[in-house]
Amino acid sequence: MKNRIITISREFGSGGRTIGKLTAQKLSIPCYDHELIEKLSEKSGFDPKYVSEQSEYTIKSRLLSNMFSSSRPYGGLNNQDYLWKIQRDIIIDIAQKESCVIVGRCADYILKDIADCLNVFVHADIDFKAERIVKIYGETSEKPEKRLIDKDKRRAAYYNYYTDSQWAKIQNYHIALNSGEIGIEKCAEIISSLY
Amino acid sequence: MKNRIITISREFGSGGRTIGKLTAQKLSIPCYDHELIEKLSEKSGFDPKYVSEQSEYTIKSRLLSNMFSSSRPYGGLNNQDYLWKIQRDIIIDIAQKESCVIVGRCADYILKDIADCLNVFVHADIDFKAERIVKIYGETSEKPEKRLIDKDKRRAAYYNYYTDSQWAKIQNYHIALNSGEIGIEKCAEIISSLY
Repeated sequence: MKNRIITISREFGSGGRTIGKLTAQKLSIPCYDHELIEKLSEKSGFDPKYVSEQSEYTIKSRLLSNMFSSSRPYGGLNNQDYLWKIQRDIIIDIAQKESCVIVGRCADYILKDIADCLNVFVHADIDFKAERIVKIYGETSEKPEKRLIDKDKRRAAYYNYYTDSQWAKIQNYHIALNSGEIGIEKCAEIISSLY
Repeated sequence: MKNRIITISREFGSGGRTIGKLTAQKLSIPCYDHELIEKLSEKSGFDPKYVSEQSEYTIKSRLLSNMFSSSRPYGGLNNQDYLWKIQRDIIIDIAQKESCVIVGRCADYILKDIADCLNVFVHADIDFKAERIVKIYGETSEKPEKRLIDKDKRRAAYYNYYTDSQWAKIQNYHIALNSGEIGIEKCAEIISSLY
């Protein structure tokens, strides 16, 4: 595979998605984030909102889901396993087609050994992230700190379930950046300079 | 504290020390690595070789050491605890005196909340590190891979014992770099651009 792929794994609220977009702009290559959800929704027939949640976060109770998912229309797979399979195919397909940035969705693991990847992890201090999610997504009845912890816990659980690796393990990334300390723009600048 | 300190934590064989030296050169500030061992040896009265081993690696059996360290000449502390105490004082003293790079020795933890730090972690793939340690330190009866694992295990245990934090935890560093993939020179360039 001749294309070069930048994968961006990120803590919720750290600005990883924005860094991905900025990096892609600098390098004049596409960035797949929401675009991936659209493709996944199209191919699976599920609603984009449902897909967005099921394709990156462990469902609250995997056990319950398995118990009640008795019909199993997809060759014995539950919805999340089915989406994982399609998502994997879509990511490999994209990487075969063009150089690009892919945000989240275990792309670092999926493309390991089959594509030339620069794997990035973006994180930040809790205050920075809390302020950011309130600004972007607004307030909810839950405290921002609780929302941050919950989302990342479910992201990590999803990653650890579908891969034989570990989310946020320092050795899995070519570069890891604290976006709050370094700055969103500078992060994109560093990443694109490594491309 | 007005000085700015770069702390470099690193896997054994990853070239973290070389990156520290290069970064310091680029910024025209001193780099403390062996210099720290000399200061520690001078202040404690212990041999530099002994100090080097005891000030960054957990002793093979802490329990045995405690059992046989019956004389405890340093106010009830064993040698390693005594060296930790002096090392801590020396690192704080250096950070108060000047901007600099400090390699290893829990400096990121010791200076947390008391100095303006840029905390860096350097790691690399095992093949890169194995080749590097054989080139630098020569062959031994033990396989390089075994030497790498052993050293990092003891470095991590030392860090985790003397701090209430965790060695190589991605969130503890402002930037983490895979030196084998990025290159030693480029790592130093990125770090100094963040200073």
